[in-house]
Amino acid sequence: MSITNDTLQIKFRAFNPVNGQPLDEEFAEALESEVNEACEAAASSFVTYRKKSGEEKAIFFEAIADELLLLGDTLIERASLETGLPATRIQNERGRTIAQLLLFADLLREGSWVNAIIDTADSTRVPLPKPDVRQMQQPLGPVAVFGASNFPLAFSVAGGDTVSALAAGCPVIVKAHPAHPGTCKLVASAIRQAVSKARMPSGVFNMVHGITHQVGAWLVKHRAMKAVGFTGSYAGGKALFDLAAQRPDPIPVYAEMGSVNPVFFLPGALRDKCEELAKGLAASVTLGNGQFCTNPGMFVLVNTSAGMEFVQKLKEAVEAVNVGPLLTENIQKQYVKSIQRLAADPSINMLTRTDADIVQSHVFTTNTKAASNHDYITEEIFGPCTMGILVKDKLEMIEFAQSLKGQLTATLHSTKEDLEEYRELIEILQQKAGRLIINGFPTGVEVTHAMVHGGPFPATTDSRSTSVGTQAIYRFTRPVCFQDFPNELLPAELKQENPLNIFRKVNNNFVRDL
Amino acid sequence: MSITNDTLQIKFRAFNPVNGQPLDEEFAEALESEVNEACEAAASSFVTYRKKSGEEKAIFFEAIADELLLLGDTLIERASLETGLPATRIQNERGRTIAQLLLFADLLREGSWVNAIIDTADSTRVPLPKPDVRQMQQPLGPVAVFGASNFPLAFSVAGGDTVSALAAGCPVIVKAHPAHPGTCKLVASAIRQAVSKARMPSGVFNMVHGITHQVGAWLVKHRAMKAVGFTGSYAGGKALFDLAAQRPDPIPVYAEMGSVNPVFFLPGALRDKCEELAKGLAASVTLGNGQFCTNPGMFVLVNTSAGMEFVQKLKEAVEAVNVGPLLTENIQKQYVKSIQRLAADPSINMLTRTDADIVQSHVFTTNTKAASNHDYITEEIFGPCTMGILVKDKLEMIEFAQSLKGQLTATLHSTKEDLEEYRELIEILQQKAGRLIINGFPTGVEVTHAMVHGGPFPATTDSRSTSVGTQAIYRFTRPVCFQDFPNELLPAELKQENPLNIFRKVNNNFVRDL
Repeated sequence: MSITNDTLQIKFRAFNPVNGQPLDEEFAEALESEVNEACEAAASSFVTYRKKSGEEKAIFFEAIADELLLLGDTLIERASLETGLPATRIQNERGRTIAQLLLFADLLREGSWVNAIIDTADSTRVPLPKPDVRQMQQPLGPVAVFGASNFPLAFSVAGGDTVSALAAGCPVIVKAHPAHPGTCKLVASAIRQAVSKARMPSGVFNMVHGITHQVGAWLVKHRAMKAVGFTGSYAGGKALFDLAAQRPDPIPVYAEMGSVNPVFFLPGALRDKCEELAKGLAASVTLGNGQFCTNPGMFVLVNTSAGMEFVQKLKEAVEAVNVGPLLTENIQKQYVKSIQRLAADPSINMLTRTDADIVQSHVFTTNTKAASNHDYITEEIFGPCTMGILVKDKLEMIEFAQSLKGQLTATLHSTKEDLEEYRELIEILQQKAGRLIINGFPTGVEVTHAMVHGGPFPATTDSRSTSVGTQAIYRFTRPVCFQDFPNELLPAELKQENPLNIFRKVNNNFVRDL
Repeated sequence: MSITNDTLQIKFRAFNPVNGQPLDEEFAEALESEVNEACEAAASSFVTYRKKSGEEKAIFFEAIADELLLLGDTLIERASLETGLPATRIQNERGRTIAQLLLFADLLREGSWVNAIIDTADSTRVPLPKPDVRQMQQPLGPVAVFGASNFPLAFSVAGGDTVSALAAGCPVIVKAHPAHPGTCKLVASAIRQAVSKARMPSGVFNMVHGITHQVGAWLVKHRAMKAVGFTGSYAGGKALFDLAAQRPDPIPVYAEMGSVNPVFFLPGALRDKCEELAKGLAASVTLGNGQFCTNPGMFVLVNTSAGMEFVQKLKEAVEAVNVGPLLTENIQKQYVKSIQRLAADPSINMLTRTDADIVQSHVFTTNTKAASNHDYITEEIFGPCTMGILVKDKLEMIEFAQSLKGQLTATLHSTKEDLEEYRELIEILQQKAGRLIINGFPTGVEVTHAMVHGGPFPATTDSRSTSVGTQAIYRFTRPVCFQDFPNELLPAELKQENPLNIFRKVNNNFVRDL
């Protein structure tokens, strides 16, 4: 689909996933001129926004949090209507979104995140005197953000990508998700209120609607844009990555594209806690109707009688869960199609009920030979299902782990003795995933300083970063160094007297004083 | 050129740039099978090398330094023969290369570079207990390194890219530079000695020769390779970037492609130190025959009588320098061609001698209108020349700065009053360059912790990094986090008792204790 005439404007509505009916409000896809305008506004606001202090940005973030809360039940109801997710889940997600804003406000206020590094001069050095060199992180420039369908608040308009880019000092343009445009509109209005109340330049935040790929392409190709944050499908993320790499000046794309998040059940754990683990996995697989990036879409165990007992209990636990509607009609269709393909594959054992044309949760099992023959067996299916890979022994488990592509997470359920025996497996998984979990489940991504929500391709397009937690800020910065600058011209973070009282690496020592 | 038959092997020799004669030794371009073998060896050595402690890697680096010194005058003579650079320059460069190895050894021994971040558990948190999450940087995997022609030691086989990748824990395959293959061979033999003496896995370092683009393409496309470091031309760096982006699994390319490194001479400085600054710029332009990445290929000043006096003195100082042969025949031809193009452009004033068919240093001037009309006026010419952009006032200077593409460096010569008046210029240049210098010259890149040798595209393909200084290590790492790991299974850097006594960010505080 291509739009070359600015007078043709595409209109669309959101759907209620519970009944499949269109919702009342109509939205207009942005015109190219509107996208360009937002990009120019972002570029011109960058001149002043990049200089805002940590304190000023913290106040801005607190204002966003306040305004989000002020939307009250209007926001909860609209998000629930557009996603089919229950109000309590949306309320929790709002809490997470606000906590995320406040965590970044803390980070900015504390200030050490800029990674100030100072190497002082030595005028007596021979043959040449050593200059004074001071480095810190500075913002890249305007960032385009593409939110996810599955977290209409925490990974959307005011979600992790937006907050980390704004925290870095980058203006943001959000491409609203067409599955929850009303929710996006409400959240955008809250951010705009906060922009105004915190006296930020108006171009620092803008949002554009769109239901075709064209709007996103205009955004990513605009010369003012300096980076892209994306959460969603492999096809969507990879397409944006390719567009950005083909620009005359390539820009980084941080696309979090999901994975199957393998969970390894080791023999001792299966022996000790078979039923508990089966119930735990079932709960994790069906959480949020299975629509989490960290959904455990794959589990691996040795094909023993304990293993078979686990699989049986897992099937029962999964079948006991009532699955709600998936987020969009398209996701529902795609899910049913994927399940039908697995059901039709004779190398796969489908344990759950087989009326495969409706959305329900599923458990499958297969072996490594089948898995290596068909890519679709080890690729993510977005929805409440999981694929068991039954291996004959430890060696085959390790070989299978070695064959895995990049993952957001990898999990081990194990006793102390298991871990001792499977050390090699742990080493391999460190090379495959961004986060390793022992005796837990991958769903539930803690928003902290140490979190890594990322991983090698194809889990993301850039394994060197995280999209959750405060380290996400570094996706949108680059180092700049100042050589022999007079103290008064240095940014506050690098001034000799350390006026912000931040931690700095001075002559290779972390200190708060010089 | 394409080689599909492994039995056809291309042979080549290096040339002595002083007399244009081929040197004695013949080198064979690597076959595809040899490249693949090196890649497989790198991948299999990664299994053990990634686990080497900081202490073990530091000993390895010290062994490389020792072995380089043991090559003695053989190395100095060969490098001098292949590059036309004088022996003293090569000796200094060896010193820099060894200092770089030892600086990284120190970094590894100290150990805090892994950016350990620890958020401890809170089992009492409601509704869900908070997990224990611990993050650190881990190596990406095998790295392909393409050295530069202009620093046959410091940016070549044992140069910054190799050392920072090895420091990160990544095996390295170097594509030897065809202009100094004998130097590469000697340095590679030293590294191999060190690999053996420090008991490192043998695949951790390999080198392949090549004079066509094919060898590099095989390397960058091999599935075992996880990142690329490159120093050289825009065409070379961008070609590798494109190849890497088109892989089924894209990998990062850190190509440092040079820039014109603009030097702004502000009015007060020109008034106070006209002759000194002209001599300083001339020395920087002609240093190493103008073949530095940070060569000041552009200077900007207001077109006043003081400005004209500066230009005249600059011309005299530049003409007074005897320029030696450029590094390769190709570089010489390209330089002469570029000079001829500028000489033929009526919008450009060529101040220096006009027998443009031989290699000599040059000064040109022009105006911003001409510069905006022809890209070649503001693009790097590799060699001893510089282009003056004469502006009519401060406003035009600021507008011109705003139009600049990404640069490795930007420099201001200025009095205190100048800096006060030109604050806006400083802000703009922070968005254009990786390093800002006040009252110095860009040549001379200090190898320290705070150095940034990088910058926005097209200076590099990835502005988020530096290729000089200890921060270069992060080009080859990604964060991995460990959730609820038993203490005994955590890497030493993350263990509760901090056995390595490194700085860590624990619950958002930089500490050495827990």
